[in-house]
Amino acid sequence: MRYRAAGGAEVIEAGEVEVREPGPGEVSVEIAAAGLNRADVLQRKGFYPAPAGAPPDVPGLELSGRVVARGPGATLWPEGAAVMAIVGGGAMARRITLHERELIPVPAGIDLVAAAAIPEVFLTAWDALVGQAGLRAGQTALIHTAASGVGTAAIQLARALGARPIATSRKDAKLAAVHALGLGLGADDGVACPESTFAPRVAQLTGGRGADVVLDTVGAAYFEENVRAVAPKGTIVLIGTLGGGTGKAPITMMLGKRVTVIGTVMRARALEEKIALARGAAAELVPLFERGLVRPVIDRVYPMAELAAAHARMEADDNVGKLVLAWA
Amino acid sequence: MRYRAAGGAEVIEAGEVEVREPGPGEVSVEIAAAGLNRADVLQRKGFYPAPAGAPPDVPGLELSGRVVARGPGATLWPEGAAVMAIVGGGAMARRITLHERELIPVPAGIDLVAAAAIPEVFLTAWDALVGQAGLRAGQTALIHTAASGVGTAAIQLARALGARPIATSRKDAKLAAVHALGLGLGADDGVACPESTFAPRVAQLTGGRGADVVLDTVGAAYFEENVRAVAPKGTIVLIGTLGGGTGKAPITMMLGKRVTVIGTVMRARALEEKIALARGAAAELVPLFERGLVRPVIDRVYPMAELAAAHARMEADDNVGKLVLAWA
Repeated sequence: MRYRAAGGAEVIEAGEVEVREPGPGEVSVEIAAAGLNRADVLQRKGFYPAPAGAPPDVPGLELSGRVVARGPGATLWPEGAAVMAIVGGGAMARRITLHERELIPVPAGIDLVAAAAIPEVFLTAWDALVGQAGLRAGQTALIHTAASGVGTAAIQLARALGARPIATSRKDAKLAAVHALGLGLGADDGVACPESTFAPRVAQLTGGRGADVVLDTVGAAYFEENVRAVAPKGTIVLIGTLGGGTGKAPITMMLGKRVTVIGTVMRARALEEKIALARGAAAELVPLFERGLVRPVIDRVYPMAELAAAHARMEADDNVGKLVLAWA
Repeated sequence: MRYRAAGGAEVIEAGEVEVREPGPGEVSVEIAAAGLNRADVLQRKGFYPAPAGAPPDVPGLELSGRVVARGPGATLWPEGAAVMAIVGGGAMARRITLHERELIPVPAGIDLVAAAAIPEVFLTAWDALVGQAGLRAGQTALIHTAASGVGTAAIQLARALGARPIATSRKDAKLAAVHALGLGLGADDGVACPESTFAPRVAQLTGGRGADVVLDTVGAAYFEENVRAVAPKGTIVLIGTLGGGTGKAPITMMLGKRVTVIGTVMRARALEEKIALARGAAAELVPLFERGLVRPVIDRVYPMAELAAAHARMEADDNVGKLVLAWA
C-alpha cells in the first residue's frame, strides 16, 4: 500500500515496491498484518514525513509475520518464525527487510494477525511506564486517552506490574467501553474529564498524594493539570500532542513538587536503541502475554485493501483499541 | 539574628533563642559563619516561610562551625570537628542542633568562615548536575546566572567532572567578572544574553548539538529557550524561578528532542534525603576541594551584625559569588 501524494483517503492505493534482499544480520519477513497508527494518518496528510531509511510513500509502523529469508550471519530466527516489530515505515507491504535483532517473537497463544496490534502500543507504554518512568509495584499510574491503543495497553501493563492504573477519557462512552473490556481498571478508577480537570479526582483517589507516574498522550491541553495531578517526586512522560503542541509550563509547581517530565518518541530512534528496546521486550514484555496478564485490544481487523476505511475510522475517533490491516 | 516581622531590612534584629540540647544521634554546632541565600531575603519579605521543624523567625540555610556537644550515640564527629551543613533555617544563630549525619566535614585547606559559602551552592549544583542530570565527562553543561553562587559552583564542578561548562549572564560586567575568576570557563564559553536568546550561541559552540545538561535558575523566562538549547535526549534541571514561575511549554519540541525536565528544590527535603546528600557530598564532593579542583567563590564576608547590609547587597544583585555572615 502506498500514498500517491499528501491528501485525503483518495491518495491511498495499492502499488509495487522493491524490497531488498537481507544483508548481513538481516532477515526478510512476509508480513501477515500491520497495525494502523495516528502517525500513518498524519503522514498521509503530509504532516509527518517518514524518517531516513524508511520508504517515503509506504506507510505502516508495526507488523507481524513470518521470517522467510535470512542474510549472512543471521541466526536468531529459523525460517517460519512468527515475529513482530516496530519499523520506521513500510509495514503495509507484503514483505520487509530489517535487522534480525529488531524482531520480537509473537507471544505463544497470540494469533499472528492479532500480534500486529501489539508492538507500537505495548512497546510505547512499556518503554514509557517502565523504561522512562520506572513505574514500580504499589505505585499509581495516571493514563490518559484510556480507550486508545496505548491507553488500553498501559492500563493492563500498570496492573500487571502491581501498580494501580487510573484512566481518563473525554468521552463517557469510551470510558464505559474500557471498563467493559475488563483490563484491570478499578471500578472507580476511570475519570471522565471533558473539561481537562482531572487533578482533583486523582487527588481524591490517591488520598491527596497524586499519581506517581502520568502517561500523557494529550500534550499542551493537559500539561499544567498533569503537574497538578502528579505526586511529589513523580514523573510525567509525554508521548503525544493530541491536545496541542504548546502549553503553559507551571515552573514553580514543577520545582516545588520536584517533578520529572520526560518527552519521548518511538519513531526515528537509532538502531541501537530500537534493538535494545526489542530485546528488552522479548525478555520482559512477551512473558506477560504468555502468562495471560496482558492482551492486545483490537477494535477491528480490516483487509489490507480497505486501508482507506480504517483511516476513516481512526479519524472519526470512535475506536476502542487498535485497528489492524491484514493481508488475505 | 531574627526577623521581627515580614518587611524590609528594618525587621532584622539580634535576639535570644533557645537551642535544644542534642538528642540521640544529634550534635550541637557552634556556628562560625552562615551563607546568605535568596530564600533568606524572600523569607524576610514574608514570601517563603520556614519549613516545619525550622525556627520560623531565625534565618540562615547553611553554616560552618565546630561540634561542641554530642547526644547519646552520636559518634561520627569528635568535639571540635570543623563541619558544614545545609539546614531548613536557624543557621544565623550562635548555635544549632541537628542530626550528626547531616554534617559534612570542612575540606582540608578551607578556612572555617569560607566554608560557610560552600554547602547551599555546591550541594545544589552537585545534586542537580550529577545526582539529577547525571552529567558525565565529555558532555556540555549550560549554566545560567553564571556569577551567582550556584553558577560559580556549577562552572567549577562541570569542569572538575571533565565536562565543558557554557555559562550565561544577563550582565556583561558579571560575565567578565566570572571569566576573571578563572573557574575553568573556556574563553568563548560565556554567553551574554540580555534578550534570553542563548540557544543559537549554544548551538554554535556545540557544533549544532546543544547542551547535554542545562542547569536553570531563571525558570519561566528561559524555559522555551532552554528546550531549544538542550541536546537531543538532554536534561534540563530547574532549580529557580528568578525569571518567573509560569512560562510557555514547547511540548512538541520536548517530545521530538526527547528532553527530560527535572524540577528540584533543596529545602524541605525529608531527613533521609538530606542525610543521603550530605554523606554523598562528604564522599565525592569534599575531595574535589581538597584536590584544589573547586573552591568557594566569596563576594564579601560581613560581620553577622551587618546582616541588613548583606541583604541590601543581595537585593542590588551586584554580587559575584557568595555573601557570608561571620560571628566575631
